Amino acid sequence: MSSTIYQATCSAPVNIAVIKYWGKRDTSLILPTNDSLSVTLDQDHLRSVTTARADASFGGQDRLWLNGEEEVIKADGRLRRCIDEMKKLRQAKEANDASLPKLSEWAVRVCSENNFPTAAGLASSASGFAALIASLAALYELQPEVSTSELSRIARQGSGSACRSLFGGYVAWQGGEQASGQDSLAVEVAPQSHWPDLQALICVVSDAKKGTPSTAGMQRTVQTSPLLQHRIKDVVPQRMKDISAAIQNKDFDTFANITMADSNNFHACCLDTAPPIFYMNDVSRAIVQLTEELNRASEAEDKGKLAAYTYDAGPNAVLYAPKANMPTILQTIRHYFPNADFDDTFDLLGKGANASHRGAQDAVALPQSLPAAFNSNVIPVHEAGAVRRLIHTQVGDGPRVLERGLGAESLLTEQGEPLRLQRAKRA
Amino acid sequence: MSSTIYQATCSAPVNIAVIKYWGKRDTSLILPTNDSLSVTLDQDHLRSVTTARADASFGGQDRLWLNGEEEVIKADGRLRRCIDEMKKLRQAKEANDASLPKLSEWAVRVCSENNFPTAAGLASSASGFAALIASLAALYELQPEVSTSELSRIARQGSGSACRSLFGGYVAWQGGEQASGQDSLAVEVAPQSHWPDLQALICVVSDAKKGTPSTAGMQRTVQTSPLLQHRIKDVVPQRMKDISAAIQNKDFDTFANITMADSNNFHACCLDTAPPIFYMNDVSRAIVQLTEELNRASEAEDKGKLAAYTYDAGPNAVLYAPKANMPTILQTIRHYFPNADFDDTFDLLGKGANASHRGAQDAVALPQSLPAAFNSNVIPVHEAGAVRRLIHTQVGDGPRVLERGLGAESLLTEQGEPLRLQRAKRA
Repeated sequence: MSSTIYQATCSAPVNIAVIKYWGKRDTSLILPTNDSLSVTLDQDHLRSVTTARADASFGGQDRLWLNGEEEVIKADGRLRRCIDEMKKLRQAKEANDASLPKLSEWAVRVCSENNFPTAAGLASSASGFAALIASLAALYELQPEVSTSELSRIARQGSGSACRSLFGGYVAWQGGEQASGQDSLAVEVAPQSHWPDLQALICVVSDAKKGTPSTAGMQRTVQTSPLLQHRIKDVVPQRMKDISAAIQNKDFDTFANITMADSNNFHACCLDTAPPIFYMNDVSRAIVQLTEELNRASEAEDKGKLAAYTYDAGPNAVLYAPKANMPTILQTIRHYFPNADFDDTFDLLGKGANASHRGAQDAVALPQSLPAAFNSNVIPVHEAGAVRRLIHTQVGDGPRVLERGLGAESLLTEQGEPLRLQRAKRA
Repeated sequence: MSSTIYQATCSAPVNIAVIKYWGKRDTSLILPTNDSLSVTLDQDHLRSVTTARADASFGGQDRLWLNGEEEVIKADGRLRRCIDEMKKLRQAKEANDASLPKLSEWAVRVCSENNFPTAAGLASSASGFAALIASLAALYELQPEVSTSELSRIARQGSGSACRSLFGGYVAWQGGEQASGQDSLAVEVAPQSHWPDLQALICVVSDAKKGTPSTAGMQRTVQTSPLLQHRIKDVVPQRMKDISAAIQNKDFDTFANITMADSNNFHACCLDTAPPIFYMNDVSRAIVQLTEELNRASEAEDKGKLAAYTYDAGPNAVLYAPKANMPTILQTIRHYFPNADFDDTFDLLGKGANASHRGAQDAVALPQSLPAAFNSNVIPVHEAGAVRRLIHTQVGDGPRVLERGLGAESLLTEQGEPLRLQRAKRA
């Protein structure tokens, strides 16, 4: 072992797109068919944490553990590509400064964990690859010489949407035009501090009635959907401009209109695929109808929209809303979808911040704050657990360096073993 | 009362589109944004029957009863327009032949009934308006001078898709380009006799979880869906050509591919509407997935597709298939969707033609005839009644003149009262 431990531990956030990424023009380099735009969610609530260490004693073999399980780093795989690209950047830095230790020549060990269970129904590849790139960047001390957008270009090759998790706030992934992918990277549209008022309520939807899972269909849509071509050429470009302006203006109504339209447009292209791809189920659709009715009723009082829904490649709804609307939205969701597990992040229920609400609950009445014109029969009250879990969070910052060197945050032991695995061995 | 009773009774069929009609370029004349194409279903199973009588003693007032209830014929309404257009054609005929009775100057009474309950979830406006036009055409003795396509132009102004029910077999509604609507009419693509082998299984899907019904959304799609414009311009024209050729060639595989793609494309445009329109529910989607799996497994054996699904503006599936495939399809549907009411039109179960199967049934095993590669876990076996009813029928002929004059088929009494209403009064 080297006398110095070269190590960094970083956390990275989840992001949820409002202009959706669907379809690759290059599946190897992960180059998308269109631009996309997302909101980065607060790492205080949802995050991936990764420790990366370089050591001469590790031998030639890079190793990586994800949630305690070792992953094979395949020779032509995405992990390999990301680590190699980061090593190249370190190598360039070392070439310019002979005094630097030759970390680029040593193997790395990487240990990564998500603080949200798979059962939350959230994709972890974006935050996971972002944390990988952030921890290697910190280990190799690449910034500020290497820009965050340049790092995002590498994260993109791990998982497309990971590039957007390199920034906080409001983030665009510019799809780019070059075959090399050099211009396919993330840029900040606005920082978290520009519009910190935006919150998100993630509704984790039960998918009990599903049969055999359908295979991933992004490229099937590219190959078979006539509508996707129209979405790429004529729909997304204008929406990217319009929603960027809405974010600059903190114009929630426009932001909501575009967010909902683009979610529906994306799922329409999935449905237009042969064979069709369905991600939303009856509960997803009920949340759409409820949100539309909340907005209709609010607009009938000349108030703006209350919330915007968006759906990724699954049945879960993410509702974006200004902070002030969240108590109404939360109570309405809990009325129609009883018994969802819920950690009360922002103490909306007055039982203390992060108070846990689990299992059987009393029936939740509709809130007094509902617009007068709200039609309470818009959807029926659903069976208990139709929405399994609610996660209340907000727009957040980009990756954080939690620690340089070996300290309390490290996921690797002094010997370079994954800490969780180590704990399991001891137990 | 006149000494002669001038009357005709006709039946007209239901049609189910395989290239969908969605969106009007003129809402008053009912001019569509795109061509559409349908299969006419057998009147022996599903039909509207209409009696039309003209009599000098009826006074100035046309009257119409639908399923025993009198309908108001509004001055600017669709019924008014249809009856007036038919009277104009009669007037022209009378102008050419002074010996004809002046039926065009007399009021008409029309009595119409559907043999399928509203609960069947089938739109009755197409067969209903087709029967209205057919019975007036027979009463006024307009054919063969007036062509069926010319009659379809009038039926179109009652209910768009009614124009397609004026023909049997395979029928195109040419959307036309003229502002007057003169070129917006139905034409026969192929008669029933050209490809009589095609059958249909209508799966009436329970919609128990629905909240407040959404309002009709066709024009909302025209106004708000960017994808619909692409469908109109770039998707439908080629599909019209291709499916017409498939019908000429009795090429079920191509027919099935286009039918399924167009159903999905239509529902994609509904989803792309603001607010989105959902017609298919989780049961509808399960039938899609089951059909896709049947087809995949059959194609794995180098056999063709087994069935094609299509969905109109509701959750019901219509499965088209060659006659030989129907036993497999029926038994598979009855396995995954237990306890559907079913009249065995073609005696597939060997209990006699039209034997009625109602309520609780024994579990239905998967058929031995399934392709070996079929994955039986593609969808779960659903709760009893998820599919409420199955209707097995086939491609059929166009409107039939059941009777001229007052006879056994008449829905009007000798006095010109609706027969069903008359019966109710007597009882």
